[in-house]
Amino acid sequence: MADHDDRRFERTGARTIYDGSFISLSVERFRFADGEEVERAIVHHPGAVGVVCCSDEHVVLVRQPREAVGDPDSLELPAGKLEAGEDVVASARRELAEEVGLAAERWEHLRSFHSSIGVMDEEVHVYLATGLREASAEADENERIEIVRWPLDDLDGALAATHDAKTIIGLLLLRERRRAAAA
Amino acid sequence: MADHDDRRFERTGARTIYDGSFISLSVERFRFADGEEVERAIVHHPGAVGVVCCSDEHVVLVRQPREAVGDPDSLELPAGKLEAGEDVVASARRELAEEVGLAAERWEHLRSFHSSIGVMDEEVHVYLATGLREASAEADENERIEIVRWPLDDLDGALAATHDAKTIIGLLLLRERRRAAAA
Repeated sequence: MADHDDRRFERTGARTIYDGSFISLSVERFRFADGEEVERAIVHHPGAVGVVCCSDEHVVLVRQPREAVGDPDSLELPAGKLEAGEDVVASARRELAEEVGLAAERWEHLRSFHSSIGVMDEEVHVYLATGLREASAEADENERIEIVRWPLDDLDGALAATHDAKTIIGLLLLRERRRAAAA
Repeated sequence: MADHDDRRFERTGARTIYDGSFISLSVERFRFADGEEVERAIVHHPGAVGVVCCSDEHVVLVRQPREAVGDPDSLELPAGKLEAGEDVVASARRELAEEVGLAAERWEHLRSFHSSIGVMDEEVHVYLATGLREASAEADENERIEIVRWPLDDLDGALAATHDAKTIIGLLLLRERRRAAAA
């Protein structure tokens, strides 16, 4: 059976196909230790942060249009892409203030993951934010985003209403904690 | 605050940048009900299926190289992309037989989700497969894939060892069921 040495690879070439303001795409070549070479189309993404933002009674979610999947009303954690060189928690604080107008006292890392590991390098970091207060600056005006305060005692309903990976992971971890705390 | 009508959009144009054997990339234009137009780079993906494949004592995982994220040893659910026109469960059966040489008596849909909803249309379907037996055909020879039988009483360890979205979602749902069954 295959072991680690059979899986080692190095990148031997890359050609950029598209370089946008957000994502880029390149076709890259890799060589394995046994000499085999493979070509992969790879999407490069700056990474993202999502925030499970909780008061004692609610988790704060957003509804927003998602053109890529044809959904005008996608229910998700407040989230945003990482800016180059910016600390992940700093980025999460900025997104929370801009998207929903909140600041949080306590930040806890819940989970990081790769979204679509076969084709894209995006890594998403999910944080739990508690101890909420209104942010000093107002939330950005965005006519498309609706803030939704979802009752914590209906996380099952929120999980049924979303189809977004980071939101599912964040809410599953939150539900697990609440069950453990109640046990 | 924004409501559904502010978020309705229609696609008004698309230009293909890359059309590979697996993913493609296009730059598309969308117009909202208020007339605003936006442009998005969107990755098109055929969709995928992942299988939480359980015996009474183990969940069957695979280790494989993932060039896009530079990991030679990514620990994941057996999974694969959907073939055009193929039923999702048929696709899951095929992947399970090809990747790990197993067939399953019972198939249950656990969860579907969009991997990276801002930039890609990939939808992943995660199934629970139980009642395992050896598949009639042998698993495909693949020198890179290692089959890992992970003890069900150490799902925490498997969750700590993976960084793949579909695997995290599948194992979180499996852990939740086992806790509920034990309670």
